[in-house]
Amino acid sequence: MSRLPQILNRHIVARSRLFTVEALDLRFGNGVEARFERLRSSLSGAVLVVPVTDDDRLVLIREYGAGVERYELGFPKGKVDPGEGWAEASVRECIEEAGYRPGSVRLLDTVTLSAGYMSHVTHLVLAEALVPASATGDEPEPLEVVHWPLDDWRALVDDPDFTEGRAYAALLRALQARGRL
Amino acid sequence: MSRLPQILNRHIVARSRLFTVEALDLRFGNGVEARFERLRSSLSGAVLVVPVTDDDRLVLIREYGAGVERYELGFPKGKVDPGEGWAEASVRECIEEAGYRPGSVRLLDTVTLSAGYMSHVTHLVLAEALVPASATGDEPEPLEVVHWPLDDWRALVDDPDFTEGRAYAALLRALQARGRL
Repeated sequence: MSRLPQILNRHIVARSRLFTVEALDLRFGNGVEARFERLRSSLSGAVLVVPVTDDDRLVLIREYGAGVERYELGFPKGKVDPGEGWAEASVRECIEEAGYRPGSVRLLDTVTLSAGYMSHVTHLVLAEALVPASATGDEPEPLEVVHWPLDDWRALVDDPDFTEGRAYAALLRALQARGRL
Repeated sequence: MSRLPQILNRHIVARSRLFTVEALDLRFGNGVEARFERLRSSLSGAVLVVPVTDDDRLVLIREYGAGVERYELGFPKGKVDPGEGWAEASVRECIEEAGYRPGSVRLLDTVTLSAGYMSHVTHLVLAEALVPASATGDEPEPLEVVHWPLDDWRALVDDPDFTEGRAYAALLRALQARGRL
């Protein structure tokens, strides 16, 4: 569509164990120059898995969110480890966090958190044909697993503990994939 | 629901012009201690505005996203400035970015980006009764404005330039508010 701005310079301006901040000096097509800061993320990104049982229940987890300092209701998710693809990471996270091994996983979409400030991408994955299974993840405490009827999705988006934008995106895509929208 | 972990210690571990990273040392209910890192954000958060014309068209903008290094198709948005509430910030961003003054704004929901790692909140706002208006924002180049029929929302979520999770959430809420879902 539009011509991309030219990247004049880039360098790291802050770094912690988890986060790396990069500054970009850009020249736009109209000649205006501006400095932008963004968070750098791993290129392989993360997966967010929507597990749906054969009788149309979503499998959610309730996990402490240090960002918001409360328990958040959401879908199993985690980063794609080195050497993994989205499918393997989805199966692993679904077992570790939800307690089910999916017989089938399907990529629904790939979303960003904040296109202006973060390179991070999250792959949205539908997981079906679930069979109980377990594996130890890296959580500091056991996660509560919550079954939620798919057709009660309006109550889910109204729940004050369900707040992540990408979880809404995953729900919308899962509703489309299961013929509800 | 669950008892909240105890925050034993918190301190800033990295800082740049835009980003502040905080480390939290937590003790969970089961006695396990763990260190978490998160991004700190302004408490007032951001607004994401869904402008809808009287004849059911969404008003979108196409803006360069430094995080993803391409032009992103999305809704007008921006941070809530000091002294503003979500309503004033929504009206201002709608004028600056979309070129319309809304006669009515309605808070649809408030979402997070990543509850585990960020405190950031975005207020999702429906803007209606639009009247053409203009004001200068802080953008380095003029934004392209795109009108999109609300009932073609399936094509919008399929568009590879529409990728932000919170934009999907806003679209879902706007479709509910306008009686489509």
